Amino acid sequence: MTSNRQIVLVNKPDGVPAREDFALREAPLPEMPAGGVLCRTRFLSLDPYMRSQIAGRHPSGTVAPGEAMRGETVSEVLRSDAPELPAGRLVRCMGGWREYSAHAAGEARLLDEEITPPSYALSILGMTGLTAWAGMVWQAKVREGDCVLIPAVTGAVGSAAAQFCALRGARVIGIAGSQAKCRFAEESLGVEACINRHTEDIDSRLKQLCPAGINVYFDLIGGGLLQTACTHLADHGRIVLCGLMAEYNRPERDPGPPPGLLIAKRAVVSGLVVYDFEARRTEYIRECLALLRAGKIIQREDVSQGLESAPEAFCRLMRGENFGKLVVAL
Amino acid sequence: MTSNRQIVLVNKPDGVPAREDFALREAPLPEMPAGGVLCRTRFLSLDPYMRSQIAGRHPSGTVAPGEAMRGETVSEVLRSDAPELPAGRLVRCMGGWREYSAHAAGEARLLDEEITPPSYALSILGMTGLTAWAGMVWQAKVREGDCVLIPAVTGAVGSAAAQFCALRGARVIGIAGSQAKCRFAEESLGVEACINRHTEDIDSRLKQLCPAGINVYFDLIGGGLLQTACTHLADHGRIVLCGLMAEYNRPERDPGPPPGLLIAKRAVVSGLVVYDFEARRTEYIRECLALLRAGKIIQREDVSQGLESAPEAFCRLMRGENFGKLVVAL
Repeated sequence: MTSNRQIVLVNKPDGVPAREDFALREAPLPEMPAGGVLCRTRFLSLDPYMRSQIAGRHPSGTVAPGEAMRGETVSEVLRSDAPELPAGRLVRCMGGWREYSAHAAGEARLLDEEITPPSYALSILGMTGLTAWAGMVWQAKVREGDCVLIPAVTGAVGSAAAQFCALRGARVIGIAGSQAKCRFAEESLGVEACINRHTEDIDSRLKQLCPAGINVYFDLIGGGLLQTACTHLADHGRIVLCGLMAEYNRPERDPGPPPGLLIAKRAVVSGLVVYDFEARRTEYIRECLALLRAGKIIQREDVSQGLESAPEAFCRLMRGENFGKLVVAL
Repeated sequence: MTSNRQIVLVNKPDGVPAREDFALREAPLPEMPAGGVLCRTRFLSLDPYMRSQIAGRHPSGTVAPGEAMRGETVSEVLRSDAPELPAGRLVRCMGGWREYSAHAAGEARLLDEEITPPSYALSILGMTGLTAWAGMVWQAKVREGDCVLIPAVTGAVGSAAAQFCALRGARVIGIAGSQAKCRFAEESLGVEACINRHTEDIDSRLKQLCPAGINVYFDLIGGGLLQTACTHLADHGRIVLCGLMAEYNRPERDPGPPPGLLIAKRAVVSGLVVYDFEARRTEYIRECLALLRAGKIIQREDVSQGLESAPEAFCRLMRGENFGKLVVAL
């Protein structure tokens, strides 16, 4: 333990990032702040918003070429000056794409020991699960009988959202990028029908599947799919805007649906930023742990081994080739 | 009383309509349905949505060339087979741009005699007032301290909305099309500052006037102004989509604000169709009558004399040249 391997952005990509846009670099071990902790990364979360940080369009800040990639991690405390964060325990922190990280005491949270496997603190019991719950339960207030459309339905947020909606008695229609993903969504996530976006026409499938219209659309995508979903919205339909996968890899920003269409539908469209729900994380974890223990929901993980695998894993995520929540195990 | 003069659409305009797109035609007196009423029009309401009917884009139906223009009227009952609608009383009905109209009993509503002048049943105590109340009070839930932006602020809906918001303790910023309108808004409608859209730069004025952002935008316009308003929205700002003046006179439909912007602002955007609030009209009239009687709100009317003046008055409305709620007195 004399140096700290980390993944650095070396080139700001124009489109879908490639492995060569990142490089493994050695760095000195970080200084432990007074009263803080030194941690070793055990699991690193890879998420679409990171592409937005690279593009300089994310509220959490920009990652410029030459800088190490950021990200949430489950890390083990190696050395501690913080009595509430003892050595040997696991914490959740913004460790980044690196082996070791140092944090002030307030910047690392002790992991609830009920969270097993600990990587779930980055998915169903972490940010992506909280995003799904905040969007579908708190914001859209999905209820029995709602017809809910969820794109990227086997992804981290989509798969949690689908299960939460199905448990509340909604009809869930999913969209995914392969036959295997569609089968998984229908067999394991409570999705009534899943549309394969590469082989099926979404517009005509929605006409068949939702003749009375979509009550809730969880927008993780933006782009043309948002427009299509709007035309299938039922009167008083709700749209929760959450992600922009369709535009992360290009410089332009897509316009939204025409206001005339939203008026005609009496639509309610609301933007969701998960950070706003941080104060309710404990409440969410309690609800979700009960569902997990009762076997009512599952979390599929797509685990990539070793820090050096992170760039290729992230590129797979950006190409839509992950299958479940992407986590790098170190 | 042997024939019925009416205004017919003779040509479907591409852009802003001209007087020549309409013609005065004689028609036979309408047949009174069994159990119904024959009415003479006293006041005809002219409203922007009529342009959308001409364009074939309005949910209430299309007016095609050769057909008489439609519209809400305050009419006097001349002959009646309906005991609840006695001859001599005033009713509110869809009389259209004509002198006489006939209605089944269920299609005309007796005017509350408290509504004086009776033309107010077409404005502050009618559809445009109800639109303003539904949008600002029921839908956006405007409250003390909100900064509210209202375009077309001396128009029928805008002027009611401005006063309702000011009475609830909101800071109201208006936009209007002339210095005289801006002065009227500031002196008589409770508007703190009114931007002249022809002589001032709206973007930079909003920066000055609303440094902490806009909490509520009442969108009566669509187009570029909706985009501009969005960039000035405060976090958790609310947008009520209601009108599309910017696109009524052209065939294209404008796109909406980019979803990424709405996410960053945690915006809530909702479409408003006043017909949905018909069941609450009486509740609204009670609230509004109390405000009128207490001298807390006013209604400025732009009254055009004679049925033959309706085409030019409507064209003025479409050019933004009306000053107050446009009514034709017959």
